[in-house]
Amino acid sequence: MSSPIRIGIVGYGNLGRGVENALTQQPDMQLVGVFTRRAPQQLKTVQADTAVFSMSELSAYEADIDVLILCGGSKDDLPVQGPELAARFNTVDSFDTHARIPEYFEQVDEAARAHARTAVIAMGWDPGLFSLNRMLSEAVLPVGQTDTFWGKGLSQGHSDAVRRVPGVKAAVQYTIPNAEAMDQVRSGARPNLTARDKHRRECYVVLQEGADAKEVEQAIVTMPNYFADSDTTVHFIDQATLEKEHQAMPHGGFVIRSAESAQGAQQTYEFALQLGSNPEFTSSVLVAYARAAHRLYQQEQHGAFTIFDIAPGLVSPHSAADLRARLL
Amino acid sequence: MSSPIRIGIVGYGNLGRGVENALTQQPDMQLVGVFTRRAPQQLKTVQADTAVFSMSELSAYEADIDVLILCGGSKDDLPVQGPELAARFNTVDSFDTHARIPEYFEQVDEAARAHARTAVIAMGWDPGLFSLNRMLSEAVLPVGQTDTFWGKGLSQGHSDAVRRVPGVKAAVQYTIPNAEAMDQVRSGARPNLTARDKHRRECYVVLQEGADAKEVEQAIVTMPNYFADSDTTVHFIDQATLEKEHQAMPHGGFVIRSAESAQGAQQTYEFALQLGSNPEFTSSVLVAYARAAHRLYQQEQHGAFTIFDIAPGLVSPHSAADLRARLL
Repeated sequence: MSSPIRIGIVGYGNLGRGVENALTQQPDMQLVGVFTRRAPQQLKTVQADTAVFSMSELSAYEADIDVLILCGGSKDDLPVQGPELAARFNTVDSFDTHARIPEYFEQVDEAARAHARTAVIAMGWDPGLFSLNRMLSEAVLPVGQTDTFWGKGLSQGHSDAVRRVPGVKAAVQYTIPNAEAMDQVRSGARPNLTARDKHRRECYVVLQEGADAKEVEQAIVTMPNYFADSDTTVHFIDQATLEKEHQAMPHGGFVIRSAESAQGAQQTYEFALQLGSNPEFTSSVLVAYARAAHRLYQQEQHGAFTIFDIAPGLVSPHSAADLRARLL
Repeated sequence: MSSPIRIGIVGYGNLGRGVENALTQQPDMQLVGVFTRRAPQQLKTVQADTAVFSMSELSAYEADIDVLILCGGSKDDLPVQGPELAARFNTVDSFDTHARIPEYFEQVDEAARAHARTAVIAMGWDPGLFSLNRMLSEAVLPVGQTDTFWGKGLSQGHSDAVRRVPGVKAAVQYTIPNAEAMDQVRSGARPNLTARDKHRRECYVVLQEGADAKEVEQAIVTMPNYFADSDTTVHFIDQATLEKEHQAMPHGGFVIRSAESAQGAQQTYEFALQLGSNPEFTSSVLVAYARAAHRLYQQEQHGAFTIFDIAPGLVSPHSAADLRARLL
């Protein structure tokens, strides 16, 4: 067996912890350590033997890390870290601001090419595996319609929006796909669905003492951009229930392409994820694609890559011959 | 726009017709013609303007065809044609005898490499898109179990077996996945399912005059290898009903991976196809991957390739920049 792929983690939120855990399921990979902007000695890692370093020490590990997995946020961290670190390491990230992916790709690609490094960007499930299925289904079935549904899942952005409403002490928001709309899509009807048709939203809210439930509910359901265009239900619960029943971070969704082949046959293509833990799944995808990044680098394929650019077999620890014999 | 990809079709059964039709949905491809072992003038093509040639004329078209799509059978045609034609053309085929794929790959790979050609083998949905999802889901979620269910669909092999029973005039057989077993898999129970648990079989039979229905039914349900290990229902119908209700060739199925991430969260990954026409879908996949074969050849990547070896973006007619902006 060849030597293990040596992984570094940058950032230690839910995603960084997820990568730390996912690595324990991949026998051909080894964690060098977590690099954090916080004081390293204050970080409590999930795995007892995980080394923690300050971000300022990262340069000293350039020769010891095969792939760096960037676990920062897409809003503030990755736009800076992505291009900067792709000039010094092979990287994988989950940049997920869809509208800014083209510009982010260009920046990372330029940095990685200039320094002969390999960077995998926008990896995870959306962008990531969902994108792969949108693209493949459209290429195979050019005449049709693709719909993406999300959930049931905890939406971090919408939960934050609810928490900002005066009178709210704590809250979570779940996005729930409309089963009837999905069945309509699967049936071949190719309906023209609005945001309201596709998903409904459920909020679980703990009120601050003395807050008015009716007022809080009204403020939530009429909130522009977040809830005004959706059917939203608000449930009031106590802090104990929130802590007991709403700590998991489930998510998932569906990509469905409903198409017609040239002689009029209905062809339905569907990809679905039901995830008990959204950050752990995203991390699992990042870790598998770190293997691909390492191999692309060994093949001297430099620059930025998305899921569209990577031969799928590169993510598996098994040989091409084994995959052909066992899984084809 | 660059010049169209020029396609040749070898063999004109359901699959060849499907490719002929699928090409009408791909504006960057052009059909040079169908090559057949039958007398060309006796072949009635679906599209009125399709040129038909004798197989013996194929050599004369080596310079006019970018990719040859092989639409023969896996039992007798492809083991001979695959290696032979991969030495003279870029090819795509749907070789689907799973157990013999490794040896077929080696033969085609050797021929294609020796003559600097590109061959895509074992393409379609199983092997093909189902294989891709078995492989990707296992790489991302290493601790879990993958189950494949087929149907509801017409099984050609089982239909043929029923037709060989004495007293049977005509018949079709449908494989039907067990919805309860699928829900068990999705739930995370990871059951150990037998063939009988996963699928049941329904036969629609037209009897020969004077045949004994009870005897025919008994002969079918006890047939070793085909039906003895399944729950099988036999329906007797008349010829008119068979012709009216059982001419379509629907198929499809499900690949479901039920897995646990490192902190114990249940992660369920599912890929599903519901196809109004099985041969038209397989053809659609072959045609999209003919585009990839052409591009790999242009990149001077020679030899045999499976779905595991091909960067997915190569199957799309759109540029990498367009795919990033629109589908990632």
